[in-house]
Amino acid sequence: MTQPIASRDMTARSPDHSQVTMTELVLPQHTNALGTAFGGQVLSWVDIAAGICAGRHARAVCVTASFDEVHFKLPIHHGDVINISGVVTWTGRTSMEVRVRVDREQIDGRRQRALEAFATFVCVDTDGRPQPIPPLELLTDEHRACHSQAEQRRARRLQNRAR
Amino acid sequence: MTQPIASRDMTARSPDHSQVTMTELVLPQHTNALGTAFGGQVLSWVDIAAGICAGRHARAVCVTASFDEVHFKLPIHHGDVINISGVVTWTGRTSMEVRVRVDREQIDGRRQRALEAFATFVCVDTDGRPQPIPPLELLTDEHRACHSQAEQRRARRLQNRAR
Amino acid sequence: MTQPIASRDMTARSPDHSQVTMTELVLPQHTNALGTAFGGQVLSWVDIAAGICAGRHARAVCVTASFDEVHFKLPIHHGDVINISGVVTWTGRTSMEVRVRVDREQIDGRRQRALEAFATFVCVDTDGRPQPIPPLELLTDEHRACHSQAEQRRARRLQNRAR
Amino acid sequence: MTQPIASRDMTARSPDHSQVTMTELVLPQHTNALGTAFGGQVLSWVDIAAGICAGRHARAVCVTASFDEVHFKLPIHHGDVINISGVVTWTGRTSMEVRVRVDREQIDGRRQRALEAFATFVCVDTDGRPQPIPPLELLTDEHRACHSQAEQRRARRLQNRAR
Amino acid sequence: MTQPIASRDMTARSPDHSQVTMTELVLPQHTNALGTAFGGQVLSWVDIAAGICAGRHARAVCVTASFDEVHFKLPIHHGDVINISGVVTWTGRTSMEVRVRVDREQIDGRRQRALEAFATFVCVDTDGRPQPIPPLELLTDEHRACHSQAEQRRARRLQNRAR
Amino acid sequence: MTQPIASRDMTARSPDHSQVTMTELVLPQHTNALGTAFGGQVLSWVDIAAGICAGRHARAVCVTASFDEVHFKLPIHHGDVINISGVVTWTGRTSMEVRVRVDREQIDGRRQRALEAFATFVCVDTDGRPQPIPPLELLTDEHRACHSQAEQRRARRLQNRAR
Repeated sequence: MTQPIASRDMTARSPDHSQVTMTELVLPQHTNALGTAFGGQVLSWVDIAAGICAGRHARAVCVTASFDEVHFKLPIHHGDVINISGVVTWTGRTSMEVRVRVDREQIDGRRQRALEAFATFVCVDTDGRPQPIPPLELLTDEHRACHSQAEQRRARRLQNRAR
Repeated sequence: MTQPIASRDMTARSPDHSQVTMTELVLPQHTNALGTAFGGQVLSWVDIAAGICAGRHARAVCVTASFDEVHFKLPIHHGDVINISGVVTWTGRTSMEVRVRVDREQIDGRRQRALEAFATFVCVDTDGRPQPIPPLELLTDEHRACHSQAEQRRARRLQNRAR
Repeated sequence: MTQPIASRDMTARSPDHSQVTMTELVLPQHTNALGTAFGGQVLSWVDIAAGICAGRHARAVCVTASFDEVHFKLPIHHGDVINISGVVTWTGRTSMEVRVRVDREQIDGRRQRALEAFATFVCVDTDGRPQPIPPLELLTDEHRACHSQAEQRRARRLQNRAR
Repeated sequence: MTQPIASRDMTARSPDHSQVTMTELVLPQHTNALGTAFGGQVLSWVDIAAGICAGRHARAVCVTASFDEVHFKLPIHHGDVINISGVVTWTGRTSMEVRVRVDREQIDGRRQRALEAFATFVCVDTDGRPQPIPPLELLTDEHRACHSQAEQRRARRLQNRAR
Repeated sequence: MTQPIASRDMTARSPDHSQVTMTELVLPQHTNALGTAFGGQVLSWVDIAAGICAGRHARAVCVTASFDEVHFKLPIHHGDVINISGVVTWTGRTSMEVRVRVDREQIDGRRQRALEAFATFVCVDTDGRPQPIPPLELLTDEHRACHSQAEQRRARRLQNRAR
Repeated sequence: MTQPIASRDMTARSPDHSQVTMTELVLPQHTNALGTAFGGQVLSWVDIAAGICAGRHARAVCVTASFDEVHFKLPIHHGDVINISGVVTWTGRTSMEVRVRVDREQIDGRRQRALEAFATFVCVDTDGRPQPIPPLELLTDEHRACHSQAEQRRARRLQNRAR
């Protein structure tokens, strides 16, 4: 895997540029004794989707720095389809926030939110050291609303860490 | 997994209704000694994407009946992102054709078609017997073009089988 | 798997009773393009360890309800050993908090905290409905200190959810 | 993995030399909600068997170039044994055709053809560039019959591609 | 999976009837930090091959009862092909011995014995209780030699257990 | 993975230093058609636990040299927890013996020995050549008893190999 870091394109990108849609089928290997997907399996998909999203924005490998509080709202069953969507909501110098939404879809087509998670990723060079990322370009009212909520979550996080 | 077959909604659906986008990251476990994804691993993702697409149209479990000729145009490397999109192009009484496109995306953002495949899926009941599916509603010129090309592939397939 | 729910032993248990130690080796299949373990892979192990811990306390299957904020402090490399320890810190009527600590251990024996996470699990019957769990018996000063910190986290969580 | 390309033995080899027999047990992780093996899982085994067969003929790594039409004739169930056999049927300068037959075997010993597939593999050097392979030595009438059918499939493929 | 136990065919079968050939490719997910296959991974393949062999003789599910001493003679590398062959060498009333040989095959075609193992399997009904198996029919001198060596190993095992 | 071999700490270590506790949950992907864990899957966990234990003593990568006779005493079911503990019992110049005990734990808390195994591991450098390991420091009567039994098993092994 070649990472042309020197020549990385650092122009600002909109959240739409890096948006990720991931669809998975819940198989026996993902489930516990009740036939529902493990929480950790779901977070594992969430992390991959968020990491692809962050990497697409940064055009370099990004690693997970943190996850905010995560609430599992609904069990996801063997045979359900999982729809995961990730979007960059905030960028700093070397890190960014990615919002991931997970919907479960049953065979009859019903779709319900099972989870929403916010993860922070850091862009790293091949030695694992943080490196700069392009800024986020906010083009629509929705982009701006997402970004402003992300700013609030970030303030809360810094406050929590100070505690 | 309960399949409310008796009460399945059989109204016609457009190809957009069941369209599937799947995004995967190529990890060491997917690659051969050259660091590129196995052909069979890629077909495995293609089959899952196509199966979700077929199941979304049929609102019941669908199983793979056949794959048309598949050509691997480009190697996909460890660290690449794979974008897979599936769409129903044709429906019969119990079977349908799904077109799957696979694009490889490198870390610098370049995206290239690596594969296009056409699969036939059959909708089955819980005993594995074929059961009827809703018709396909063609709403746009693109839908109609896709469907007409699918008709031609189907004719060719029947001809090949007769050979 | 038979779950003798009717006859479940509901006597109070100390945190030591259900304490879990899990040791894993980081293999190629757990790592990203930099050769470090995915955040989601680590959370997946954390979730299994916490679920075993919760199930050991409750003597019934428990499912993930939530994870608190999780910060990844150190990268974990291919070939490192991961030491995970889980302990029940708080119990309610049907739910409990599990603290999970993850240490990375390098081949030269150095061991460092890579992660600390707090998860809430709910004990469920075979239909997935919450069911009562035994109370937690606090025997030592450390048990009591852990429990009192867990009470504070719980208050914060309820406050966050109200926001 | 060392590939002594410079000194590769390029003498002609019979199809018997590289023939591959692969036996697999269908486990829960290979199956869908009906308890039957996924089409993509079966193709994944077919691809590995064909790749081993091609590599055994070429004495170098070979990668999948294409699969011909594949028809799934019978469902393969959880607990069934899968018998896969691969044989090189045709060789060109850098590519070859491999025929793969998949039989399902039930616990009572009944064995039935579930699939026959034809794949084209290309022999590559460590940079992924096509490199020459040894010729195929046809020793028996069966070898010659297989080869002549392969020539016909190849003509059809070239014709299809021209379309 | 239906197991027609009542009507199981209990006529004597030769070792050739149940002989198993399994071929696997060593992938990154099978290897340790040195790029060689884990001992446990190899034993896992040996166990599946032996279980298929035992099940083929018994025409019912068989479970592992024991493994004799196992010596790993050669490292097996990432990219090597593994050839596993299993054969029933001895049968009792409900149990049997299976000999498994593992050869590593390098890309240049060299093939060397990496492991020989002897496992005992017990045939069980759907409740996991031992059930009778068909006798072994010894047709050739090689069958008889294998069987007589198996008798000696069995005597040694009984003696070891008595110790 | 960096292995500071030149500066490896070779001071004697007690068996407690390298003791390993591994806890696993039996999932569908680990089980056969009867819903019990495969023998090979269990040995695979045993091998990883033993390898971590050996590596922790040696402070370098260790590879499996042999397993003694292994008897599976109890089936382990889907949903059971597996408790594995490994301890170094004997050291030579470059090899050591590791004892691994496997207990199955059912949801009601009952814990029973399912397996005891003795494995020999060899410490290797990055080229796979055997390299010296630190001596074992026997501090307690239990350490000495374990070591003396290991000496007897070693004598028996050498005798068996001579046969």
